[in-house]
Amino acid sequence: MRQFVVVGHDAPTTDAFPLDDLPSAAGRLDVLCRCVNSALFLSHGIRDARVHLVLADSYTLTVDGATVRNLNPDERSTAARIRNALAARDEAIGHMPAKPSPGVELRRMGLVPTLDRLDGTLVELHEDGTPLADADPIANPVFVLSDHRDFTDEEANLLADRAGARLRVGPELLHADHAITVAHNWLDTDGYAHY
Amino acid sequence: MRQFVVVGHDAPTTDAFPLDDLPSAAGRLDVLCRCVNSALFLSHGIRDARVHLVLADSYTLTVDGATVRNLNPDERSTAARIRNALAARDEAIGHMPAKPSPGVELRRMGLVPTLDRLDGTLVELHEDGTPLADADPIANPVFVLSDHRDFTDEEANLLADRAGARLRVGPELLHADHAITVAHNWLDTDGYAHY
Repeated sequence: MRQFVVVGHDAPTTDAFPLDDLPSAAGRLDVLCRCVNSALFLSHGIRDARVHLVLADSYTLTVDGATVRNLNPDERSTAARIRNALAARDEAIGHMPAKPSPGVELRRMGLVPTLDRLDGTLVELHEDGTPLADADPIANPVFVLSDHRDFTDEEANLLADRAGARLRVGPELLHADHAITVAHNWLDTDGYAHY
Repeated sequence: MRQFVVVGHDAPTTDAFPLDDLPSAAGRLDVLCRCVNSALFLSHGIRDARVHLVLADSYTLTVDGATVRNLNPDERSTAARIRNALAARDEAIGHMPAKPSPGVELRRMGLVPTLDRLDGTLVELHEDGTPLADADPIANPVFVLSDHRDFTDEEANLLADRAGARLRVGPELLHADHAITVAHNWLDTDGYAHY
């Protein structure tokens, strides 16, 4: 299965944010919503993939494409789902998640324990990585991406230590949601093999 | 230059729509907003590309990455820009556009005259097309995509007649904005050549 971890440095950790101002008042939650979209949506269905949003290194919200229901592709409705999950944050105790709706889980953990609990090959997207066209497809990849900010030095060192692959999506630096779309297409086409 | 034409079948043709309900009350304007995002945004800049949104075959709104100012990646603020342009629709007379802000033009024309006025090679994205990995990059491509609906038979016949290339983005059918991201990446990497 493909998984995507997106680090939201400024993301909210309570449900006290407005849906009308995702870029500012909600700490660029618009970026994270678009990442949910690109990780899970196909034209006529939902991918069997999981996306994990790390919210200010305090909570991690997971959306599982295989079991989520009534997910819509627009930013606002996805932000509302995240807000509902954060409203249930007191139900996340220790490593037991809150489960506000099918396929949505909120855990009280930041980046390190989130990476600890995910199986698969951790993939770092990096401008010095192997170009996708030169790389072999990866089974059970866990792509780790950052929101509108760069990874902190600490995060970058962590990824460098743990990554099983370092890939480059192209000569242009892309938004996280665009990088997810490219990664999916690369895997869909078996590493750009003829298909 | 790369250009993207997105056919919005249910898109609004006046500014009487709410920013709080883009998927329903604004005729899936969320899809078109995401297409503007994927056509123009890089991580740290705006692409020198143009996106043309055909609104219910009545108006075409063009956003020029080279000259647009203060564009943000979120759906709501892009929808507000589209709404402002539609509020100036009476200034679009004959083939003279309304110019509500730098880099944004609204023309009173549907799909056919829009395609007539664009220079470049019309590219049809089609499930029976040549896989991107097997196709040579195209100079000055004009990609034509549809919103959440399929092209009508009339539109599909028009594209089949006019297309200089028919390409397939992958084995999975993608949302229009995701297809734009993949097309950009394919061109960025010179047709998936080593880069």
